[in-house]
Amino acid sequence: MQALVLNQGLSYRTDVLKPEPKADEALIRLSLAGICATDFELVKGYAGFSGIIGHEFVGVVEAVGQTQDAHWLNQRVVGSINIGCHTCDVCRNVGPEHCQQRKVLGIRLHDGVFADYFTLPVANLFAVPDAIKDQAAVFAEPLAAAVRVREQLKVIRVNKLAVLGPGRLGLLIAKVLVLAGYSVDVLGRTDATLELPRQWQLNTAFIQETDDTSYDCVVDATGQASGFKQALRILKPRGNLVLKSTFSALEPIDLSKIVVNELNIIGSRCGPFAEALALLEQHSIPLETLINASYPLQAGMAALQQASMPGIRKILLHP
Amino acid sequence: MQALVLNQGLSYRTDVLKPEPKADEALIRLSLAGICATDFELVKGYAGFSGIIGHEFVGVVEAVGQTQDAHWLNQRVVGSINIGCHTCDVCRNVGPEHCQQRKVLGIRLHDGVFADYFTLPVANLFAVPDAIKDQAAVFAEPLAAAVRVREQLKVIRVNKLAVLGPGRLGLLIAKVLVLAGYSVDVLGRTDATLELPRQWQLNTAFIQETDDTSYDCVVDATGQASGFKQALRILKPRGNLVLKSTFSALEPIDLSKIVVNELNIIGSRCGPFAEALALLEQHSIPLETLINASYPLQAGMAALQQASMPGIRKILLHP
Repeated sequence: MQALVLNQGLSYRTDVLKPEPKADEALIRLSLAGICATDFELVKGYAGFSGIIGHEFVGVVEAVGQTQDAHWLNQRVVGSINIGCHTCDVCRNVGPEHCQQRKVLGIRLHDGVFADYFTLPVANLFAVPDAIKDQAAVFAEPLAAAVRVREQLKVIRVNKLAVLGPGRLGLLIAKVLVLAGYSVDVLGRTDATLELPRQWQLNTAFIQETDDTSYDCVVDATGQASGFKQALRILKPRGNLVLKSTFSALEPIDLSKIVVNELNIIGSRCGPFAEALALLEQHSIPLETLINASYPLQAGMAALQQASMPGIRKILLHP
Repeated sequence: MQALVLNQGLSYRTDVLKPEPKADEALIRLSLAGICATDFELVKGYAGFSGIIGHEFVGVVEAVGQTQDAHWLNQRVVGSINIGCHTCDVCRNVGPEHCQQRKVLGIRLHDGVFADYFTLPVANLFAVPDAIKDQAAVFAEPLAAAVRVREQLKVIRVNKLAVLGPGRLGLLIAKVLVLAGYSVDVLGRTDATLELPRQWQLNTAFIQETDDTSYDCVVDATGQASGFKQALRILKPRGNLVLKSTFSALEPIDLSKIVVNELNIIGSRCGPFAEALALLEQHSIPLETLINASYPLQAGMAALQQASMPGIRKILLHP
C-alpha cells in the first residue's frame, strides 16, 4: 500500500505492507486525512517518531480483530489518538491521553493514517452519524481539542476572552467558545489572516495594536513562543492563559510576571470526540472554509510543504 | 532617624527625615523587621526601586493622619504591603495587590520599614492580639503569603503534595498545608537544609533522589529557576505547579511539557493577614526556630549579607 513514512526524512512509499489488526484493533481504510502542525513538528524531529505519520482522519472499518464485534464492519469512523495501557493508575483515573506508556496514532509508537490503511483499537473509535460528511468528520480530532478548552474553562470565571492565532485550531477554539456563550476576540497579526475569522462573524483585532490588558482569559493557539509573551502582556492580573500549541523550542521566559500577577497557566491538549461529533451534527461551524486543498497521498510531500506555509489553514489528503 | 536606603547601592544612614503620615496613613515606630529574599533582589536591581527597603514588620502606631481614628494610637500592628488606588476596576474587584497604580511598602514607590519610623495607610493595618509576641508577629507577611497557597488550592483536588525548597517560605507553606490536612513532602537538596523541616515533623526527601512522579501538586518555593524544572519533572499529568518565588532571570523553558501533560501553573504572591494572625494565635508553628539572628539597624548591611547566605532562614532587624 502507499504511505508517507518518516524515517529520519519523510518519504512517499508504495511498498508498505498493509497492516494486520491485533485482537483489540480495527483495520481502517482511509477516506480523508488532515495535516496538522504536529505533523511538521514530527518531521522536524519533535518526539523522535519514526513510522507512518498522520492522526486526523475519517475512514471506514474494513476488518476487526478477533475479540471485536462485527457491527463495526463497514462503519464510517473517526478515532481518538491516544492508546493507553488501560491498567495503570493514570489510565484508570485520568485517561489514556496521559498514560506514561501510551502509544499515539502517527505520533508515538503507532503508525498513523497517511496511508491506504491503518489500525486503531476499537475502543478508540467513534461512529460518524450520516448527517456529517467526510469533509467535516475529518475535523473531529482538532475540534475535540478545541472542545477541551471549553471543558477546562468550565471551572473558571471568565468574562472577556481572547484567542491568539487565527489559524485552524485558533478558529475552531474561538467558534466553540462563542457557541458556548463566551465573548471572544480573535487576535492576529495581518489583515489577511483575520479575513476568515471576520467571515465567521468573530470579533477580530490586531495583536500588535491591542493595548487592552483586561482579558481574563487568553488562549494561545499561535504555535509560537512569541504568542506566550503576547498572552502575558494582555492578561489581567489573576487571568488565565490556556496554552494550546506544542513547539519544541526552549524559550527564555520571565516567570516573575506569572507570580507577580498571580496568573494561571493551563496546558491543554486532546479533547472529547463525542462532544466534537455532537457539534459537527449541528452544522454550526463552516468547516469547509478552512480547507485550502485536498491532495492524493502520492502528492503528500508537496501537500505537507504547502500545509506549512503561512496563511494555509487545512490541507487534506485522500488515497 | 536611621534607615537602610537603596539608591543604586544600599547604605545605612542616620540623616533620614522622620516621615509625616498623610491624611489616610499611620506613622509606625518599628519594633522588629524581617529580611526577605525580595530585599536582596531589590538590591540587585529587581523592580528598579530606590528608597528605604523592607516590608516585613511589627511596630507600634505613634501617630495617625487627620482623617483616621485615634484608637489606633499605641496599637501594636502588622500591615499588608500593597497600597492600591482604591478607585480602579482591579482594586474594586480583585484587590489592591493587583492594582496597576499600586505602591508597595519598601518595594515600589513607598518607603519601607528598615528604619526607625515609616508610614502605611491605616486601611492596611492589622492589630496584633496580645497572645502573639513580636518575634512571631514579624512573620505575619510571609505567613500570609503561605496562606495564599492554601487559599488557591481550595478549588483544586489535591492528594499528594510536595514543597520544593526548605527555606523560610517553603517551611511556612508546608506547615500551613499540613495544618490544613494535606499530605506534604518537603524536598531539598542537602541534609543540612532538611534538618529543620524534620524537627518540624514534616516529611522530607532529597529532590535529586526523588523519582516519584505522582505528585498532583508541587509548590516551588526554591527561589531558583531550577526549581521550576524539578517541579515539572515530578508532577503527575494534569498536576498543579504553584509558583511562589520571584526572580528576575529569563529562563529557557520547554513549554511543550505544560501542554502535553496538561499542567496547571498557578502564580502565587501575597496573602490574607487576618488568616495569618489567626494561625499565629494558635502557636502551632515553631516560628522561633526560623530565626538565625537579630541585628540592630546600624548593622543592617551585615545583616542583609548574612541573610543571603545559603542555609539562613530568617534574619531580623530592630532599631
